Amino acid sequence: MAASTSTQTSNRTQVGIVGAGPAGLFLAHLLRRQGIDCVVLESRSRAEIEDTIRAGVLEQWVVDLMNQMGLGDRMMREGHFHSGITLRFNGESHHIDMAGLTGGKRVTVYAQHEVIRDLVAALLEDGGEILFGVSDVQLHGVESDRPSIAFRRSPDGPLEALRCDWIAGCDGFHGPSRQAIPKAVRNEFQVVYPFGWLGILTEAPPSHPELIYANHERGFALLSTRSPEVQRLYIQCDPKDDIANWSDDRIWSELHARLEDRDGWTLTEGRIFQKGIIAMRSFVCEPMRHGRLFLAGDAAHIVPPTGAKGLNLAVADVLVLSRALDAFYKSGRTDGLEAYSAVCLRRIWKAERFSWYMTTMLHRNPAETPFEQRVHLADLDYVVSSRAAMTALAENYVGLPMD
Amino acid sequence: MAASTSTQTSNRTQVGIVGAGPAGLFLAHLLRRQGIDCVVLESRSRAEIEDTIRAGVLEQWVVDLMNQMGLGDRMMREGHFHSGITLRFNGESHHIDMAGLTGGKRVTVYAQHEVIRDLVAALLEDGGEILFGVSDVQLHGVESDRPSIAFRRSPDGPLEALRCDWIAGCDGFHGPSRQAIPKAVRNEFQVVYPFGWLGILTEAPPSHPELIYANHERGFALLSTRSPEVQRLYIQCDPKDDIANWSDDRIWSELHARLEDRDGWTLTEGRIFQKGIIAMRSFVCEPMRHGRLFLAGDAAHIVPPTGAKGLNLAVADVLVLSRALDAFYKSGRTDGLEAYSAVCLRRIWKAERFSWYMTTMLHRNPAETPFEQRVHLADLDYVVSSRAAMTALAENYVGLPMD
Repeated sequence: MAASTSTQTSNRTQVGIVGAGPAGLFLAHLLRRQGIDCVVLESRSRAEIEDTIRAGVLEQWVVDLMNQMGLGDRMMREGHFHSGITLRFNGESHHIDMAGLTGGKRVTVYAQHEVIRDLVAALLEDGGEILFGVSDVQLHGVESDRPSIAFRRSPDGPLEALRCDWIAGCDGFHGPSRQAIPKAVRNEFQVVYPFGWLGILTEAPPSHPELIYANHERGFALLSTRSPEVQRLYIQCDPKDDIANWSDDRIWSELHARLEDRDGWTLTEGRIFQKGIIAMRSFVCEPMRHGRLFLAGDAAHIVPPTGAKGLNLAVADVLVLSRALDAFYKSGRTDGLEAYSAVCLRRIWKAERFSWYMTTMLHRNPAETPFEQRVHLADLDYVVSSRAAMTALAENYVGLPMD
Repeated sequence: MAASTSTQTSNRTQVGIVGAGPAGLFLAHLLRRQGIDCVVLESRSRAEIEDTIRAGVLEQWVVDLMNQMGLGDRMMREGHFHSGITLRFNGESHHIDMAGLTGGKRVTVYAQHEVIRDLVAALLEDGGEILFGVSDVQLHGVESDRPSIAFRRSPDGPLEALRCDWIAGCDGFHGPSRQAIPKAVRNEFQVVYPFGWLGILTEAPPSHPELIYANHERGFALLSTRSPEVQRLYIQCDPKDDIANWSDDRIWSELHARLEDRDGWTLTEGRIFQKGIIAMRSFVCEPMRHGRLFLAGDAAHIVPPTGAKGLNLAVADVLVLSRALDAFYKSGRTDGLEAYSAVCLRRIWKAERFSWYMTTMLHRNPAETPFEQRVHLADLDYVVSSRAAMTALAENYVGLPMD
């Protein structure tokens, strides 16, 4: 173990947070408001986490929470607030009036890296501690009463230990936290989809005031927005495809074919200044707690982006965790901590279900039987013809109630 | 071709109906009320079709239609009218208030063979023609203007031809009608499920006032009713299992394990006087029309029984067909006939979707990934926690609107 071969300097906090993504940063803000000490350790630099462009659709309660916490000013100025989305299939467009179906809840398009910028700036301004660029992060003693996180502030620096009461593993799918739960205890569920998304950023005005989700015989496509000058678009593709195979012309040609409808709506082109391919998976790790370690966000679960749930689930996890820690520090109660995994997983599995439903319904999957492919089209036809089904889709999209 | 080697006597009608199941019998009644001549040919005896015990849950509009047609008296006296169903999983019971969620539509439990008895009696009494026990049925000239149906009234009788304007193929999954559509024209979609239902009839009073659909770790079970003295129950099993492997004791033991809940509800046993195993499939044939042949009911589509849709879809098909034939004979219009296949298939695919959803959600399928299995449990948890999702389930179960 590296820890035994190096000098250790020692630090102490109440909650050690591994990872400065949405889960870690929201948790730090929530804990500090409750008077609970915490330190955030992040292996990447501040610039890296702030500049990695990530999509973001926020559920209504997340928007409300950010505003309640005083973190929503820029989001309210620069975010895009849509009352619905459009589903497009068989060349026809169908508007899903999310706000009308859910008592006014809206779809907020505000990119994840913008949320991160806002949360980092506010946390540092408030005196919160984030150590960027740490390396050799290792979790120790999670089964004991004295857990700690070993790390180096810089690659050449000494190995230090952050001693804490509890560790929040918010370090994403590939981080070390989940691995600190013994394999024999972990139960992992996974689907790797046989398709990915080719995403582009283009300098163009919005082609449509809201998001368009298109199921086309050539595959899925999604029209989203970033700003009045920059648009985000996605095309279903082979996840192993090389982006070099996709010239700008080919990308536009596919987008036109998949997104345009019979009513003469057309897509506005622009210069493509970023493009890349992402794979898609569904993943859940049970349980989400082991000893004094709590997993939150992508460390415990991944959803394909079709349901727009990723960031929202991370915030839901840490809201549950912050309440449980508050009860522990204020009154010594441990019931919230004991229930953390079960409470989170109930919401997570519903979001996994919804993301899987949206993904299988909207993509074309040649590995499915022709019967299953038709069932997905029947599902679309049903959704747009039934107020109940449309409401079910809408209430999931804008976010199921958060107690 | 057998027809060329035998004497033929000749008969003539406007619509030749192959099969005296729900599709054929409802069609005959509907056509006769419109003044359209028809003859029903059935390969089985009257006793055979009337005594083959089949489950039956009728959608509200089918109940209304039977009453409008004057065919509902016995159903209203002997049928069971439930306001909802119970979903049971994780040892807990959840009532789905179908009537409350759908503006008063109810679940009518009235067995298919009872419907058949009522329709046969009324048709014969009204002077309608049903030829029972015919053999060697063959469809001829469906692509021509003069289609005909060859048949023998008895195995030793002469080959006769029923000449007609149109043929309605209502002869079920294994009948000759679908085979009269050339293979190159037919597009067939199918799922064969890796499980079946072991069904029993037992002499016992009802254990519960409504149907119970149970998802248990040992597999699906369903509690249904037949009369105050006879109950119908089903257990998910291997479709290839031999009924001889299932002693009465084993059946009751499984039913108790799968159906009982934490609240102390118990199942009442009785003498088992019938038991058998049925396989389950989903199937759709497109198109449902070829020339002057129209397929209806199981000849064109099969649903697993979990959604309780089979008989209802058959009636929907022939209602559409009777209206199209009415417009043709009254005013020479063929648009309804042209649209028949597309109009029916839109409803059929929604029912296939619902039946597939209910089946995959409620059964345990070891061939599915652990992720998928969890998604189905999350689906149940979601359905019972969301009024929108519960309404979507209810509106499908009691029947989507029939124009």
